[in-house]
Amino acid sequence: MPAKNAFYAQSGGVTSVINASAAAVIQTAKKYPDQIGKVYAGKNGILGALREELYDTSEEAAATITALKHTPGGAFGSCRYKLKSLEDNRAEYERLIEVFRAHDIGYFFYNGGNDSADTCLKVSQIAEKLGYPLQAIHVPKTVDNDLPITDCCPGFGSVAKYVAVSTLEATADVASMSETSTKVFIIEVMGRHAGWIAAAGGLANPDIILFPEVAFDRTKFIAKVRQSVEDNGHCVIVASEGAQDAEGKFLAEAGTLDAFGHKQLGGVAPTIATMIRDELGLKYHWALADYLQRSARHLSSQTDVDHAIAVGEKAVEYAIAGENAVMPAIIRTSDDPYAWEIQSAPLDQVANIEKMLPAEYISEDGYGITEAARTYLGALIEGEAATPWENGLPVHAKIKGVLVNKKLPPWSK
Amino acid sequence: MPAKNAFYAQSGGVTSVINASAAAVIQTAKKYPDQIGKVYAGKNGILGALREELYDTSEEAAATITALKHTPGGAFGSCRYKLKSLEDNRAEYERLIEVFRAHDIGYFFYNGGNDSADTCLKVSQIAEKLGYPLQAIHVPKTVDNDLPITDCCPGFGSVAKYVAVSTLEATADVASMSETSTKVFIIEVMGRHAGWIAAAGGLANPDIILFPEVAFDRTKFIAKVRQSVEDNGHCVIVASEGAQDAEGKFLAEAGTLDAFGHKQLGGVAPTIATMIRDELGLKYHWALADYLQRSARHLSSQTDVDHAIAVGEKAVEYAIAGENAVMPAIIRTSDDPYAWEIQSAPLDQVANIEKMLPAEYISEDGYGITEAARTYLGALIEGEAATPWENGLPVHAKIKGVLVNKKLPPWSK
Repeated sequence: MPAKNAFYAQSGGVTSVINASAAAVIQTAKKYPDQIGKVYAGKNGILGALREELYDTSEEAAATITALKHTPGGAFGSCRYKLKSLEDNRAEYERLIEVFRAHDIGYFFYNGGNDSADTCLKVSQIAEKLGYPLQAIHVPKTVDNDLPITDCCPGFGSVAKYVAVSTLEATADVASMSETSTKVFIIEVMGRHAGWIAAAGGLANPDIILFPEVAFDRTKFIAKVRQSVEDNGHCVIVASEGAQDAEGKFLAEAGTLDAFGHKQLGGVAPTIATMIRDELGLKYHWALADYLQRSARHLSSQTDVDHAIAVGEKAVEYAIAGENAVMPAIIRTSDDPYAWEIQSAPLDQVANIEKMLPAEYISEDGYGITEAARTYLGALIEGEAATPWENGLPVHAKIKGVLVNKKLPPWSK
Repeated sequence: MPAKNAFYAQSGGVTSVINASAAAVIQTAKKYPDQIGKVYAGKNGILGALREELYDTSEEAAATITALKHTPGGAFGSCRYKLKSLEDNRAEYERLIEVFRAHDIGYFFYNGGNDSADTCLKVSQIAEKLGYPLQAIHVPKTVDNDLPITDCCPGFGSVAKYVAVSTLEATADVASMSETSTKVFIIEVMGRHAGWIAAAGGLANPDIILFPEVAFDRTKFIAKVRQSVEDNGHCVIVASEGAQDAEGKFLAEAGTLDAFGHKQLGGVAPTIATMIRDELGLKYHWALADYLQRSARHLSSQTDVDHAIAVGEKAVEYAIAGENAVMPAIIRTSDDPYAWEIQSAPLDQVANIEKMLPAEYISEDGYGITEAARTYLGALIEGEAATPWENGLPVHAKIKGVLVNKKLPPWSK
């Protein structure tokens, strides 16, 4: 059987290590020249396939591909574009297969989270229905850490490390000045649906964590802040953007108004800061890490980088071994010392299933993490992933981005 | 002459390297046992002197003092407490001298910014008037980078590096997703009075920098955002918290109201994000680095750490050499390669003088930095200062904090 080309695409929110998976896919594919020809990467993710905008990664220098391992963002472009169901938009799936056929693509590597696992499965199914030989492998990636079967998701460990380190450092700052200055410090972190990232802040031992999983109780919260300031002189709070009250209303939607009376998109941190000002009159400061937390490659966890590379390598090896509609999952085989291996997980057991933060990871009072959580999280932030520096700044790969000639009429939605 | 004790205090907003100066003062003092007895550190800065709360640093393990060199925050506590003028509160200065006399303190090392340079000078003057032999040396520190004579201020180089690296990393993130997601990213940075920190963001080549020095023009700004998005697909903005309009009104005070109609303490980032939403309808994200930027010791510049240690060492050497009312200033002797030395600067030429961002550091359109700024700033972010790690987190010093027995009646304000 002659070699088939491969298509790789990045999907959804990027991470500081998604390019490490990309590099691993591209480099591992090169080891199998009899089975895999070129690796094409979608420009801006799956949109690149629909539009027939395919980067030829063989045009990139080997050093550029290696440098992807320390480059944040999505080097080939990612997108938030969810394919509809097969029933609702079969044409879109058929277009994908048409592009794959035109470019002799026999391997589909899709690097993303929950939605893309679902898409990857559907692409595999439609290819089979259409009689087009395709091996579709999902490469896990999401800072949300919510994919099932896998012990963790590449991208999460680095965000966890960022949040834990930042909280620890800011705590040193606040603690040293609390007598005459700021008494309450809030860091707002990502995690709309689950408190995985907020829990990671627990490794820095803040006074309070606000989880989406624990209904916010204003009276209890204010009492806890007061107590922390009385006991320690200050109070450090890690607040998940998904923090919500018992009715499921996000604190971030508490309804601040701009100067024209328009409702403003809020944040959890300013909302609870205002509460603390109103109820306790304490001086506060707050930080919103936003994209910094998921792009901080300079602070990535080595464990996370290792995972990201391993799932990229295994994805290609699974494809070579004839697997289809699977995802390399990270399986923890030991807590102490931390050990792990990669196993193949069927995509129909992954797609559309969200792994939530276990209740036993949250302390009894709802404001901290348990020893079980420390064990789980601690392993994932281990190791400092080196990155090359030049003139005081990290060096990032810059792809040439050579597009393959189109062979098909333009895609019409 | 028998050895006299020394008093060291941290003042004002802390930095990621102020403890490196503390360690240098304590370690260098040990080299001169004939002149310097013990080094006492003020608990919470100058308040520690007024209250006679003095940590005996000789009670700390040598390893703890060394570890201060990689510990953010102010290990002995800092404070925002500005002594009044000699005329308004002479008693306060006399109390200081009384405490110094009670504990046989002949050296006063004050580690701070503009206000503390002024206090240090006044303490030196009152000691002289009262005939109390004291050598007062100011140890420079401020992320604001606004002390005169010295080429830069310890603490600034690390914030500059943090802001440049964070902006660079977030740009990679935004650029990779801008087609279908966020088009405008704003990072708000410190600098109420001067744009030094915002200028440092320029090293990452953002599309727009908002300086306090350049009057904000909404129409021109919106046009620039639109143009950046048209040209590059996205727009990255570094906004100084001190950004203001032609009338000197801070953008952060644009007047957002909370749900109860109370005026909310704002931020520049949400204010301009709202503008961009209203005028251009573009999807935006914003980050507020807040204390993270000045406590991020994991990302400190080696140049900055070297400066912080050098000014601590020289402060002690100046004292030994008989100097009084001076500050070790960092003098740049060459741009390429960057070279510097420490020189003694008289405090009366330092106190109450703010060094502003030079106009020639801001590009003609007011939204960027010039080559001169790149040369100046580039040197200060050079080098990555190592820090020890354990279990995935940076290791910080923890002082025992043994207080000296009091000899005086309590301080009454």
